[in-house]
Amino acid sequence: MSKGNLLSVREDVRVVDATLRDGGLCNDFFFADDFVQDLYENNVKAGVDYMEFGYKASKQIFDPEKFGKWKFCDDEDIRAVVGENNTPMKIAVMADVGRCDYKKDIGPKSESPVDLIRIATYIHTIPAACEIIEHCHKMGYETSINIMAVSKNRTEDIQAALDIFGQTPVDTFYLVDSYGAFYPEEIRKMSKMYLEYAEKYGKSVGIHAHNNQSLAFANTIDALQEGVSYLDSTVMGMGRGAGNCQSELLIGFLKNPKYNVEPILAQIETHMMKLVEDGVKWGFDIPYIITGQMNSHPRSAIAFQKANRKDYRTLRLEVFDME
Amino acid sequence: MSKGNLLSVREDVRVVDATLRDGGLCNDFFFADDFVQDLYENNVKAGVDYMEFGYKASKQIFDPEKFGKWKFCDDEDIRAVVGENNTPMKIAVMADVGRCDYKKDIGPKSESPVDLIRIATYIHTIPAACEIIEHCHKMGYETSINIMAVSKNRTEDIQAALDIFGQTPVDTFYLVDSYGAFYPEEIRKMSKMYLEYAEKYGKSVGIHAHNNQSLAFANTIDALQEGVSYLDSTVMGMGRGAGNCQSELLIGFLKNPKYNVEPILAQIETHMMKLVEDGVKWGFDIPYIITGQMNSHPRSAIAFQKANRKDYRTLRLEVFDME
Repeated sequence: MSKGNLLSVREDVRVVDATLRDGGLCNDFFFADDFVQDLYENNVKAGVDYMEFGYKASKQIFDPEKFGKWKFCDDEDIRAVVGENNTPMKIAVMADVGRCDYKKDIGPKSESPVDLIRIATYIHTIPAACEIIEHCHKMGYETSINIMAVSKNRTEDIQAALDIFGQTPVDTFYLVDSYGAFYPEEIRKMSKMYLEYAEKYGKSVGIHAHNNQSLAFANTIDALQEGVSYLDSTVMGMGRGAGNCQSELLIGFLKNPKYNVEPILAQIETHMMKLVEDGVKWGFDIPYIITGQMNSHPRSAIAFQKANRKDYRTLRLEVFDME
Repeated sequence: MSKGNLLSVREDVRVVDATLRDGGLCNDFFFADDFVQDLYENNVKAGVDYMEFGYKASKQIFDPEKFGKWKFCDDEDIRAVVGENNTPMKIAVMADVGRCDYKKDIGPKSESPVDLIRIATYIHTIPAACEIIEHCHKMGYETSINIMAVSKNRTEDIQAALDIFGQTPVDTFYLVDSYGAFYPEEIRKMSKMYLEYAEKYGKSVGIHAHNNQSLAFANTIDALQEGVSYLDSTVMGMGRGAGNCQSELLIGFLKNPKYNVEPILAQIETHMMKLVEDGVKWGFDIPYIITGQMNSHPRSAIAFQKANRKDYRTLRLEVFDME
């Protein structure tokens, strides 16, 4: 049963802009201040529901000299952009299991501009993820659990994970296609499964798609049709490797009049074209098809692109041997 | 009910390479001879079922000085590439209603290397299309009817058209998303409808998708899942405007071991990169999103690209006013 239809409004939909966070993986989070300020303002105008500013990464593990400030998302850096954030848009950050000093770096919500903390985990680090969820919940934040790379996991393990996370105070389960390997048919089935567990535990479901096989947008709107509510997108699809679901596709698709694609086009005209000209690299291309088709981490395709290689057949053999 | 599953083989599948035909719209059909020869050989190796060489365009209407030979597809030009075509791959050409001297230019199949004639029509030129179908059938060819731009047509009119074509000797109904406007949810419904009429009249169904909204591949494999058999693709998606479903995505997706993506990658390495470097333009980009979202002919986006414009917001207002 699909929820809603192509001409109606689904009130549960939440668009989550992840441009700074996933896009930051393409430029080590060195975004110009006016880029970030305009993105914030354009997202508000576009009707975006959450804007993710970046990671809450540990300064013990990552050298702050080597990354832009959105790798760390100090509250004062977010405040410099959003002030008291007197807008309907909420602020999100991501905490990576094992790469975050959450006890030290994530304090009470009452003192922070952040609303939502998205906890990214692999399936084998569930207990650590649960601890972060509990901490963030106690501090007063909304939370989501983003289980990465599930295209490599067994269904029974994913179900076990959803049962464990269902019993935590986490608000949202996120279906994450880290390798851009899922086909729409699979995304529809996976969405059904996540939704079944979400219903059991009173959670909502989100989707974060990658564009390796030119399916990020298709997978996102198919998940939406199944009943998924939280939809990740980035401006021009900026994100690691093949990138993400494009905001200009998603926002232009949604029929709720609160969404408006024009400010997204403004961000593209004013800032994104310059990033492209400056040589920041991301987006759908042949090497990512190869890793996506083989359900492989995109790192070999990213290295291939960086080296300006064009021997696609050799890459295919290399990835085949790796898997 | 979906047909087959993601790991099995669907024996009814036919991959139709339309690189020269739809791609020819990007370079006025001026392909180098070795490009065409290698494409033919790579398609055979890749397991492609049909290769479309171009149009059977009228030399009264189109000046042969101004176009490459694949705008006209003389039998001897095809023979120079395929010889007796002693391969499992069949040869196709396209005849456009109103732009083809079919009585003069389409002779007996027994004297031609062509197997399939694809007849392209708008919904308001059905009687003329029927005459071409009858002629080609009498001459001994397989035929398909490609009803273009149906995203602008009323469902009742499409159904009436399928009833008329059902009573001709045409072999295949083609669902054509000329404007790249259909979402997967709609393609699934449209496929069901085309298949219902096809079953009634003993025809098969094909799909020709455009990539304006980055949905060409998704729409193609969703149609496949519904039961559509003939799947159009082009190497690197080469085709008018945003282009088509990419062969490297489609062939890499299909599980029948007769299909092999490597020769497609070879064509990309050897020839397609050069076309791109030579400045031939096609492929997914912001302006095509704008016309696709508004179900508008891509011509305004193509002109925008040619003029090297980047004022996307203005284009959006222009297209909005046009529709």
